[in-house]
Formats: sequence, C-alpha cells, structure tokens
Amino acid sequence: MKVTPQLARMMSTNATTVGFIGLGQMGNRMATNLMNKGHKLNVYDVSSDAANAMKAKGAQVFSNTRELAKASEFVVTMLPNNDIVTQTYEDMIKDGVNKNTMFVDSSTVDPNVSKHVQKIVSAAGASFVDAPVSGGVMGAQNATLTFMVGGTTDEYNRVKGFLEGMGKRITHCGTYGMGEAAKICNNMMLAISMVGTAETMNLAVRLGLDPKVFNEIINSSTGRSWASEINNPVPGLNPTAPPSDNYNGGFSTALITKDLGLASSVATMSNSPIPLGALSHHIYRLMLSKGLGNKDFSVIYDFIKNDSSK
Amino acid sequence: MKVTPQLARMMSTNATTVGFIGLGQMGNRMATNLMNKGHKLNVYDVSSDAANAMKAKGAQVFSNTRELAKASEFVVTMLPNNDIVTQTYEDMIKDGVNKNTMFVDSSTVDPNVSKHVQKIVSAAGASFVDAPVSGGVMGAQNATLTFMVGGTTDEYNRVKGFLEGMGKRITHCGTYGMGEAAKICNNMMLAISMVGTAETMNLAVRLGLDPKVFNEIINSSTGRSWASEINNPVPGLNPTAPPSDNYNGGFSTALITKDLGLASSVATMSNSPIPLGALSHHIYRLMLSKGLGNKDFSVIYDFIKNDSSK
Amino acid sequence: MKVTPQLARMMSTNATTVGFIGLGQMGNRMATNLMNKGHKLNVYDVSSDAANAMKAKGAQVFSNTRELAKASEFVVTMLPNNDIVTQTYEDMIKDGVNKNTMFVDSSTVDPNVSKHVQKIVSAAGASFVDAPVSGGVMGAQNATLTFMVGGTTDEYNRVKGFLEGMGKRITHCGTYGMGEAAKICNNMMLAISMVGTAETMNLAVRLGLDPKVFNEIINSSTGRSWASEINNPVPGLNPTAPPSDNYNGGFSTALITKDLGLASSVATMSNSPIPLGALSHHIYRLMLSKGLGNKDFSVIYDFIKNDSSK
Amino acid sequence: MKVTPQLARMMSTNATTVGFIGLGQMGNRMATNLMNKGHKLNVYDVSSDAANAMKAKGAQVFSNTRELAKASEFVVTMLPNNDIVTQTYEDMIKDGVNKNTMFVDSSTVDPNVSKHVQKIVSAAGASFVDAPVSGGVMGAQNATLTFMVGGTTDEYNRVKGFLEGMGKRITHCGTYGMGEAAKICNNMMLAISMVGTAETMNLAVRLGLDPKVFNEIINSSTGRSWASEINNPVPGLNPTAPPSDNYNGGFSTALITKDLGLASSVATMSNSPIPLGALSHHIYRLMLSKGLGNKDFSVIYDFIKNDSSK
Repeated sequence: MKVTPQLARMMSTNATTVGFIGLGQMGNRMATNLMNKGHKLNVYDVSSDAANAMKAKGAQVFSNTRELAKASEFVVTMLPNNDIVTQTYEDMIKDGVNKNTMFVDSSTVDPNVSKHVQKIVSAAGASFVDAPVSGGVMGAQNATLTFMVGGTTDEYNRVKGFLEGMGKRITHCGTYGMGEAAKICNNMMLAISMVGTAETMNLAVRLGLDPKVFNEIINSSTGRSWASEINNPVPGLNPTAPPSDNYNGGFSTALITKDLGLASSVATMSNSPIPLGALSHHIYRLMLSKGLGNKDFSVIYDFIKNDSSK
Repeated sequence: MKVTPQLARMMSTNATTVGFIGLGQMGNRMATNLMNKGHKLNVYDVSSDAANAMKAKGAQVFSNTRELAKASEFVVTMLPNNDIVTQTYEDMIKDGVNKNTMFVDSSTVDPNVSKHVQKIVSAAGASFVDAPVSGGVMGAQNATLTFMVGGTTDEYNRVKGFLEGMGKRITHCGTYGMGEAAKICNNMMLAISMVGTAETMNLAVRLGLDPKVFNEIINSSTGRSWASEINNPVPGLNPTAPPSDNYNGGFSTALITKDLGLASSVATMSNSPIPLGALSHHIYRLMLSKGLGNKDFSVIYDFIKNDSSK
Repeated sequence: MKVTPQLARMMSTNATTVGFIGLGQMGNRMATNLMNKGHKLNVYDVSSDAANAMKAKGAQVFSNTRELAKASEFVVTMLPNNDIVTQTYEDMIKDGVNKNTMFVDSSTVDPNVSKHVQKIVSAAGASFVDAPVSGGVMGAQNATLTFMVGGTTDEYNRVKGFLEGMGKRITHCGTYGMGEAAKICNNMMLAISMVGTAETMNLAVRLGLDPKVFNEIINSSTGRSWASEINNPVPGLNPTAPPSDNYNGGFSTALITKDLGLASSVATMSNSPIPLGALSHHIYRLMLSKGLGNKDFSVIYDFIKNDSSK
Repeated sequence: MKVTPQLARMMSTNATTVGFIGLGQMGNRMATNLMNKGHKLNVYDVSSDAANAMKAKGAQVFSNTRELAKASEFVVTMLPNNDIVTQTYEDMIKDGVNKNTMFVDSSTVDPNVSKHVQKIVSAAGASFVDAPVSGGVMGAQNATLTFMVGGTTDEYNRVKGFLEGMGKRITHCGTYGMGEAAKICNNMMLAISMVGTAETMNLAVRLGLDPKVFNEIINSSTGRSWASEINNPVPGLNPTAPPSDNYNGGFSTALITKDLGLASSVATMSNSPIPLGALSHHIYRLMLSKGLGNKDFSVIYDFIKNDSSK
C-alpha cells in the first residue's frame, strides 16, 4: 500500500495544516517534505507557476497571505530579504490573525526584522519565532536542515517537532532574533575560514608543498576548520565536494555575500569591529562582480591562484 | 632503581651524541628530554648561564659550534631568526664537518633559509633537514611537540626516531624547506581563524547571543575551527585554556606576529595574495605595539571587544 | 547703527520664513546664521532647551513639525539618522503641506532615505532636495559650509541663494539622493586617506625619517592628499589643526565612523566592493570601542604608533 | 653648430666620467641624458645588447664592474632588486676602489640594503648615497625625475648638480637609506590612494553620480589626492593620463606591487602596523596573478567595477 500524503496525514497524530509562503529553491522542497510527513499544505507565492507546482502535489493555493494565515495552524515564510519579510508580515496580519497560529520565519534576515515582526505578530495576538536554516538545497531536499530558533523555551518546544519534518537539528539560540544572529555570525566565520583556507592552500602550493600532504598536516593541526576538512577549496582533496566538481553546487558565492552583507549591517548597528568579516565580504562582492555568483563559495581558491599564463 | 640519563643511554640501542645549539625557553626543554632519553648532550648557547644550566644536568658545554658539531652525530639548532640561523650554520661548517652528522634546524625561519643552509651543509658533505615544531613550551616540556620535516624520505626516516625523543608527531612535509613552509602556512591560517573567531564571538555577544550557547552552535556547524573548539578566545568557554586564565601562557602574540611576518615575506617572494593573512598580521602587529606581546594570541578578543566604559 | 535680524530681514529682498528642525551642534549655528541674514525663523527640537535657546535669539518655537512646515517657505532638517529623518518627514506632511514649501534635508543619511522622502513630499505637492554639508561645527559657525545638493536644476537654483546664508559652496550633485551619495563617497575616501597617511607617517618615522622632511616630500609628490597637507595626523606638522592640539576639535571619530557605516550600507545595496573603505570602517569602529569617539579622526596616528614603552 | 656630447663635455666645467650599471628601461634613458649633458659614460649591463646600444651612442662598454668603477668619478647603479644590488656592490669593490668615486644607487631597494652597501663602500674608502627616483620612464626620458637622496649634507651637495642632469627635483631625505625609505613610504601611500580612489569612484558611479561631477566635488573637497586629481582611474577624467588610454603606459601594476612588497618587508622589520598598505599590497598581487602586471596601476578601477554582464 502506497502511503499517500492524505493517508500519512490521517495516520499522524501530529499532522496539521501548514501555510507556506515562498516556494523557491528551498521553500518548495521544505513544503514538499511537510506534505510527505502528512501535513495539509496551504501555499502562496508571487509566482503562480511556483504555487501551481505545489498544487500538483496536493497543496491548496491561496491568492493572498491573509486568508492563508487564517486557515493554517503553522505558517512558514521562506523569503529573500528584509523588506519582503517585513512587508509580507505587515500585510498578512493587518486584518487580524488566528490566535493559535504559530508563525515561523525561516528567511535569512536582520535580527531586528525578526524582533519587529515578532512584536507586530504578538500585538495581533499570535506567536512568532525566527528559525533560519543551514544546509542548503540538499538539506532542504533531504529534510536534513539545521534550524536555528529564536523565541521563548515554550515556543521552541512548540515548533521543534514540527520543524523536524524539514530538518534534523533544531537548535534553540535564545530570544527573538537570536536564530538569525546565530546564523549570520556562523556564516561570517565560515566565509573567513574559506577565504583564509583558500589563500593558505594557495600559498602552500606556491611554496612547493603538495596540497594533499599539506591538507593532512593542517587538518591534524591548529589550522583546521570545517573549510579545510569538509569543503577544501583545492579541487580533488574532498572528492565529493563542490571544489572537485568545478565549484558547482554547494553554497553559492551570491548567498554567502548576502549573509556577509547582513553581518556588516548588524556589526554597524551594534558597533562591533569585524575587520576580517568585512574584508571577506568585499572579496566576495568583488567575485560577484566578476560573474562568480552561482559558483560554490570555495571558488575563492580559483579566483586568487595565479593564472597558468603567469 | 632510578633511571639516570647515563643509565638510560646505556640501556638504549639508539642512544647517541647530540649537539644542541640554542637553549632558550624551547631549546633547554627539548635538550633535557633528549638527555632523559639517554642521549649524550653537547650544548652551546650565546648565554653562558643557559649553557651552564644544562651542564648542571649533565651536558658538556662547548665554547664554539664548530667543535660541537664535529663531536656530535646529530646537531639540533633552535634559534630566533633567519639571520642567526644562516650565520650559525655558515660559521659552524666553515672548517669542515663530520660527514656522518645530521643537522636538524628546528627554528622557525624562511624556507629559503633552509634551502640555503641545506646546500652549504650538503656541499660540506653532511646532511640537513628543516624540522620546525608546533606545540609551544608545554609541548617542549612534555615531549609532545609536532615536528614538520623537510628533506628526502631517507633523511626523514633517519631523523624520525630521534625526533620522537622530543615530540609525538613527526610529519614528512616534502623536500628541504617544506617543513618551514608547512609551519608558516598552518600558523597563518591559525591566526586568521583566531582573529575571525574573536570578531565573530564579539559580534554574537553584542547581538545578544549567550557565548556558551553560540559556541555550541558554531562548533557543531560550518563555523568551527581549532580556535573556536580548543582555545576559544572568550574567557570561560575552554576552562583550562589561556583565555580562561587572563590570556596567560599559551602561544604568544609576539610569536604569532613573527610567524605572520615570515608568511608575508614568503607570500611576497612567491607572488601569492594573502589578504586575510596580511590583515591578521597587521592587527597582531598593532597589538604588539599596544604591549600585548606576551599574552596568548587569543587576547585579540579582549582587544576588539568594547570597553565597559562605552 | 546695529543691524538687528529684524532690520536685516527688512533690508533683504530675499528674506523669508524658514522652519528649522534639529537644533543640535550644527543646527543651532546654521539657524542662527539664517536669522543673522534676516530670515524669520520657526524652530522645532525634541529638546525644549535647544528650542528655547533659539527663542532667546528671536526665533518662534513650534511644538510640532506639521504646523511649523505650513508656516514656512523653506524647511531645513538637520537630524541624526535614517530613521529619525524618515519618521520626521512622514509625520510632518501627513496632514498636507503648503505647496510652495521647499524642504531641505541637510542630515547625513542613506541616499535611499532621500529618495523616499522626496517621493512622499512630492506626492503631497511640495518640493524636496537633499543637501548634506561638510565643514563641521566651525563651518556651521562661520557660514562656510559646503552643501551638496541632490535635486533638479530648478530646485538647485531655488535653494542656492538661500543656502548661501549658511555656507560658501553650494554644489549641484545630481538628482535626489546624489547630495548624500557625494558626501558619503567623499568621506569614505577621506577616511581611507587619513588611515593611510597615519600608517605611512608612522612607518616613515620608524624607518628613521624626520616627519617634517618626509611630509614635505610626500606633499610635493604622488602620496599627497588633503589628509597629508591640511590635517596631517602627526602632531606639529599643521600647527593649527587638531593633531597639534591633542586631537581635540575637528571631525570626530564618531562621525566618520557613522559615515563609514552608511558607506558600507550603500556599498552592500549597490554591490560595490570597497575593501579599503570597509577596513577603514572597522578600524574606526575599533577606535570607537576604545573610547576615542570624541577625538578628531586623525587620532588614528596616535592609535597605531608604538607605545613609548615598547 | 650641433652640440655633440663630446663638445658639450668640453664646454661644461662639471663634465666628468660616469659609470652606469643597469641599462634597462630607466637606466638607458638616464645614461643617455648624462651623455647629452656632456659626461663621458662607462657602461655595464648583464645584457650585451643593452650595453651595445649605449656604445652606439658613444659610451664605453666594460665587461666587469670593478674596472668600470675604477675608471669613473661617479658610479650610478639602476638595478632590479635587493640581492642584485648587494651582489653588484660586493663584487664591484672587492679589489678596492678609487677613493674619489661617489657611488649612487638609484635602484628601489630596502633601506637596510642601502645601509649595508654604504658601510662596505665607506670601509673601502669611497662614498655612497642612495638616490631612488620617481617619475617613471617618461621622467627618465625627459630628465624630469625626482631623486630622493640619503646621505650626509656634504654628500647631498656633491651629487645634487650631477643628478640634475637626469632629474629636476633632488631632495635630501636624511641619512643613508632615507632616500629609499621616503620612496617606499610615498609609494605605499600612493597605492592606498589609488585603490581608495578606485573603489570610491566605482561606488559613486553605482550610486548614480556622474563621475565627472563627482570628481570635481572630491577634488575641491577633503577626498582629494594625487590619484583623484592627476591620474583619476576612471577613463576620460584626465584625458592624457593612462586610464584614458586603456591603462597603457604610466606606472605599472608590477612596479607598485614590488614597492608594496618592500613596504611590507620594512614594516615587518620595524614593527609598524600598515593595515591599508598591506591590503593594497595583496590586492595588487591578486591583480598581478590575473595578468594585469603591465597595465598602469590605476587599472584597479577596471578590476573592481562590475562587469557589464552583471
């Protein structure tokens, strides 16, 4: 017997009705996983094609977010930037909300946006947590995302099981906005590690070291990091990672640059010096301007190494 | 029965005569370990106090390096900089060498210095490898240093067992100079990781994250590195590490700055862009100028965080 | 015969009624100059003390900006940041505006704020230009400010004579927001020049050059800039500049840091790499965190030079 | 009557015999100017083609520098790097020198090289000054170079008139090595100004400013520098400068990168933090690795601006 979404929903004691807003590369995969777990899906996207693709899988398409929210127990938003998140929430709740609805924003945005949205959702009578993700398109596809949740302990407990339908690690980072803060800080450090690893590997190679030998040394020493161990930017060292596939797939330069832009912004607002973070930001921005936005962010190695012609 | 050095020497089939030049913080501990392993020690230092301290432990003091070298099967040099290493070797071999002597330079210097010294030692008829160390004063004390060896496979095999008297990991990095190259590259990456971790932790704290919670997140995510896991610069996160002891002990700002100076120099000579390495270099140089040279290099966190008065 | 403001106003064919919002260090001096030129002043400030100080000079105090605007031919705003400018304009015009009123924002804010404010003022039927200033408190005091105006040519011509009551150079930079863009870009370059000059002078001195001799060389060569010629950060080289008065007065570290924050923000939004600008930003942010916010921004020289104790 | 070099020499009371070592792009033009001023030229170059080209103009070619030096009243060296300068002088004087000979090194090298060479020349009984130049190939061609002289006041006075045969500004910078120090520091600041101007102009353009309008603003304000006024990196703003000729001619990226390498080296040795200098260094090094070494260093603008395809 095939377990259809409908059947799974009936079989599950936790199955519920979920509104999903933002059905892009990440969102459509996350929403599909929720359906596969037995939830009933209400969906909205500015692109009718994106919405209809989910309709074909059994979701109900809404033409505005206000009605979608009123008809849903959970609402997940997965949107591209600060302004769109703010506008979406301001519009969605302006006619009032169902007080039982839990809103979850998985977009990557400024923590202050999360704090603002939480306030207006709370003032309207419902609940909100920020819960940005890491793990990329593959994590979304395979329901192995990490969620970084900002909210009260009660709210965290309320969303934890639900989010496990889309991810495998659900972390409580603190109060509202702290999920976003954790994601932005982690990704800033990731960018620094990647740029640093790329320039270190390039220097090592140019000094005459064998990259494989040097990588073993650094990985068993104090220079090791996720970037050197798991996604080493030198092609061939991690055979299944993007650098070994011409920097395709993975975490794009465009996305790390976006996250670094958020890091710069919150550093300015909190008066926090981030010299290496800011420099990494502008190195990636330079790479964007050179047309490398779609490549895995480890392409920094290829960008800084000497051309063969030199 | 107490195992005296003399007894250990008699008991060991590998015990030999070792010349040791440079008996500073590192050198005197390394030489002591060699004696404890049963080797006969011939020592030289520009400071007669340093030499006499080893004499009290049973070493024979020489007043010049030429005679010391001729009387030793292995010669280890542990000296402060490029010029002193070059001059010491040029002087030591100018009257000729014992062809069976293996010279080992454990100083941290430019790989080109190692290549030059190898050439002149080789021309004189003896053998040379570079074998800089990591692990610091504690590693020297406890014979747990890592040695990064540059030389042929035969030479590596010849020194491996001997170096195990002073360390626990003996790595073959490649040909002459590659031990130095590996150390300099690893330490440049280490500095980048530490500065990056410090600014990331500071940003996280200023955004409202609990440092302990955020550290757990980063350490199980893509932002992790040796600096975040083992020597996190926020006091209290690694209770036995220098940041939890007011940045005392550990790896000094002065020493990482020296290594970053070498990295800058070899990057210039090899035409390798090291933007984050160079910036980390000058951040540490600024800290040196502020009197922080003797503190553990994780003191960067304290340096960049806001004063309580702000 | 003493020329009182009233008399000056009667004597002047161009005297008019001016609303002034924001009477801080800059604003109160600018408003005073306008009164001295014969204009009738309507004033508003969140601080009643600031407003009353202008009342004592002959200005009329308003308790809200809506009535002030309706009673004024020109309205000048001189406010601290993006949010306050936006909120002030949104509030000021919400009951409608006098169509003949020309609004002039002299605050330093994001050009996108200017564009937004221009749109809402224009939609309400009145006119708006952005016109941030350079020249500091002394320029405000002496009516020698430079105004950088963003608006149409007609609008520029309409405000030019009026602004000459507060400054001596009135520049037309382009359309709405371009006054702000010009100011932010100029000040980013200024910060880069100042940090660069400070590290260059420090290096020169440490290499053994006499700072006076080297300054003459650089100023007649390719290394010259406003920072080296007019406000050289080495004390004594420009005897009447802030570096020669213990870095008091001048353009504060806090203000250049604010401008660099705006530069970072607009660079992010426009995808423009600013590696040196971003690094200068975070060097100044570090200096802020060290309590140097009130010193002239040339204090960077003092910050990076070696302590005498080293 | 045509004034041949021979005739000019006879006519000049100051005409003398000059040895010239290093007849590259700069050296051959400088030597030619000296001949045109009436001096008798003795020349040496590792390239016999370069030497023979000068022979065709009337110079006497020497096959080694020792004899050349003994036959010359002044000896000028114009060589590519530290090692070649050191080796050339060590070799040239090892058989003794004519005590009246004044050696002038116009190469761009580390001030410590100058100090070392001065010591060995002085020990041999002759005199030495360092006198690096700015002004490039055009300055060499037209005898309009600037010379930065390191030596005693007497030595400066002795070489001043002679150097005026190749340049128009002869500056006394201080003692031995200070000519080099001044040049390196000036050029570091120049690089910072150029990178800063490039990123500022690019940001301005992307924010919507007209580059011509913004350039006028910055040049009459605090953001001005030699780079913005004389060699603005935006094509068209200085019609006769390299940026307006596809970045051809001018001061090459390869040469500024070499100078920045020297700045990094002396900053390390003197413990001087140069954050912007070091970052500019590695930005130029990145550009070298991208094949831009032969372009004018203002090509940084082209390098960082967005591709039209974005």
